[in-house]
Amino acid sequence: MLLSVLYIIGITAEAMTGALNAGQKKMDWFGVMLVASVTAIGGGTARDILLGHFPVSWVAHPQYLAITCIAGITTTVLAKWVIRLKGLFLRLDALGLVVFSIIGTNVAMTTGHPALICLVSAVVTGVFGGLLRDLICRRTPLILHKELYASVAFLSSGLYMGLLHIGVSDIYATIATLVIGYSVRMSALKFHWRLPTFQLEVEESLH
Amino acid sequence: MLLSVLYIIGITAEAMTGALNAGQKKMDWFGVMLVASVTAIGGGTARDILLGHFPVSWVAHPQYLAITCIAGITTTVLAKWVIRLKGLFLRLDALGLVVFSIIGTNVAMTTGHPALICLVSAVVTGVFGGLLRDLICRRTPLILHKELYASVAFLSSGLYMGLLHIGVSDIYATIATLVIGYSVRMSALKFHWRLPTFQLEVEESLH
Amino acid sequence: MLLSVLYIIGITAEAMTGALNAGQKKMDWFGVMLVASVTAIGGGTARDILLGHFPVSWVAHPQYLAITCIAGITTTVLAKWVIRLKGLFLRLDALGLVVFSIIGTNVAMTTGHPALICLVSAVVTGVFGGLLRDLICRRTPLILHKELYASVAFLSSGLYMGLLHIGVSDIYATIATLVIGYSVRMSALKFHWRLPTFQLEVEESLH
Repeated sequence: MLLSVLYIIGITAEAMTGALNAGQKKMDWFGVMLVASVTAIGGGTARDILLGHFPVSWVAHPQYLAITCIAGITTTVLAKWVIRLKGLFLRLDALGLVVFSIIGTNVAMTTGHPALICLVSAVVTGVFGGLLRDLICRRTPLILHKELYASVAFLSSGLYMGLLHIGVSDIYATIATLVIGYSVRMSALKFHWRLPTFQLEVEESLH
Repeated sequence: MLLSVLYIIGITAEAMTGALNAGQKKMDWFGVMLVASVTAIGGGTARDILLGHFPVSWVAHPQYLAITCIAGITTTVLAKWVIRLKGLFLRLDALGLVVFSIIGTNVAMTTGHPALICLVSAVVTGVFGGLLRDLICRRTPLILHKELYASVAFLSSGLYMGLLHIGVSDIYATIATLVIGYSVRMSALKFHWRLPTFQLEVEESLH
Repeated sequence: MLLSVLYIIGITAEAMTGALNAGQKKMDWFGVMLVASVTAIGGGTARDILLGHFPVSWVAHPQYLAITCIAGITTTVLAKWVIRLKGLFLRLDALGLVVFSIIGTNVAMTTGHPALICLVSAVVTGVFGGLLRDLICRRTPLILHKELYASVAFLSSGLYMGLLHIGVSDIYATIATLVIGYSVRMSALKFHWRLPTFQLEVEESLH
């Protein structure tokens, strides 16, 4: 219930920031709805397909897709307002990331997958929306060389499973993961925490 | 039956224009067959995967894949002729778009999905082939800021379902949708009908 | 058994060369693991999804994913060594290509698909990892205009099925395919064998 409300807040915020990216590329309304929806629910879709978990979430619940399309189009009118509230949207994005991670973990757990796949499921759910958005918008994916993002999904998933494993009830495990995961992500943004980068100075082709 | 014939004409035409894109990128014959096939049957493949509708169409009917590969390779010989007949291919593309939309709608309807998913199914079938082609050829997807395209798939699907809903027989609903969808697409090309565009002049990163 | 050992060698080598590509794009460790894994097991994943063959291989065997992630991170330390051993990695890549092709053929055969789909399954298994790697790294896919690569997957698959068809036992068919497929790939690299290229000099849009 808590997760459902937060999930809807999360996909709405993701869809609105996704729509801004479509605007930077001068897309039409269809492009706006596509990029908004891919950003918001592309991660869950990739997870469901990889896990063979059909119907994928928005096919089972078309209202989610309606929300992301409407949020996208609304953003074309409210763009300046959304940009001015950048700080709020970064917070909602951080919240959404942890919510997506918990949901991704849950989907893999309830379909009987081992812990490693649950972690991967969380990361795919949290990260692939942004990855697909950047592929469609033809940008180098941001998540691959910026502040901790996939790592937050990984940590949140591991923390959540760990808490459940030691007997914490689902609701407390969820709240603790939300608080800690959100704090880690916001700290990463504030203090520019990043994973080590691998930089290779080779001009020639490697193939 | 009518749809099957039109479908084969449609994927052949799509494969031939897809092959021209491969030629612009100096691809080899494998690349030509890949881009031709992705353009022609990538939309239906994306639809089947998203709907969990296995086997996907060309796995169930490998002859479709054979057609698109042969059409692609044939185009390397007939390229000048295909370019000169650009007007014909635009017409065949418009026809194919409506055929793909009706088929996409049908696949979602017969697997018991609600109307919103049937509309999405039509759009994915009609549009994702071109989207994947542009991703492979590393171009900004054309369909996201040009004349009505996804909208035609959406309208065709809605019209087709509406006609069936008010009791029109399948064959008449199909013909009416083909005529009207085709006319809308050709008019959009002629009069440059476009969806409103969302343009955002922000240099800075939004993340 | 032989194939399993060669498969693990193959995905390790593919993951390591994939990681080098991530390094050229200055990705962080998550990016390195993503690109390494996509390069090594993206082809098999694409094949399993297209064939509706769930669970996909690394979901059923998470250890493969662990291997590619570890191989990717290890490469960030051993990069110079990997680059210096370029010749060895080209050989391992050639071996991996044939192994992937045989496995792809087997997956399609054991799930009852016709020969054409088995050939496609081999090509997708062998080729899509590199294709997805290049899409994520935003490069024009190399395999679409370089030495024979997809063709080797196609030939290996056809040879393997042909040998089985005329009654050769699986182990001998596998060994013969490995030897011949590997030799063709290495010869293609040495003598620059390529498929014919389709080059189209048209500036204007084709749509």
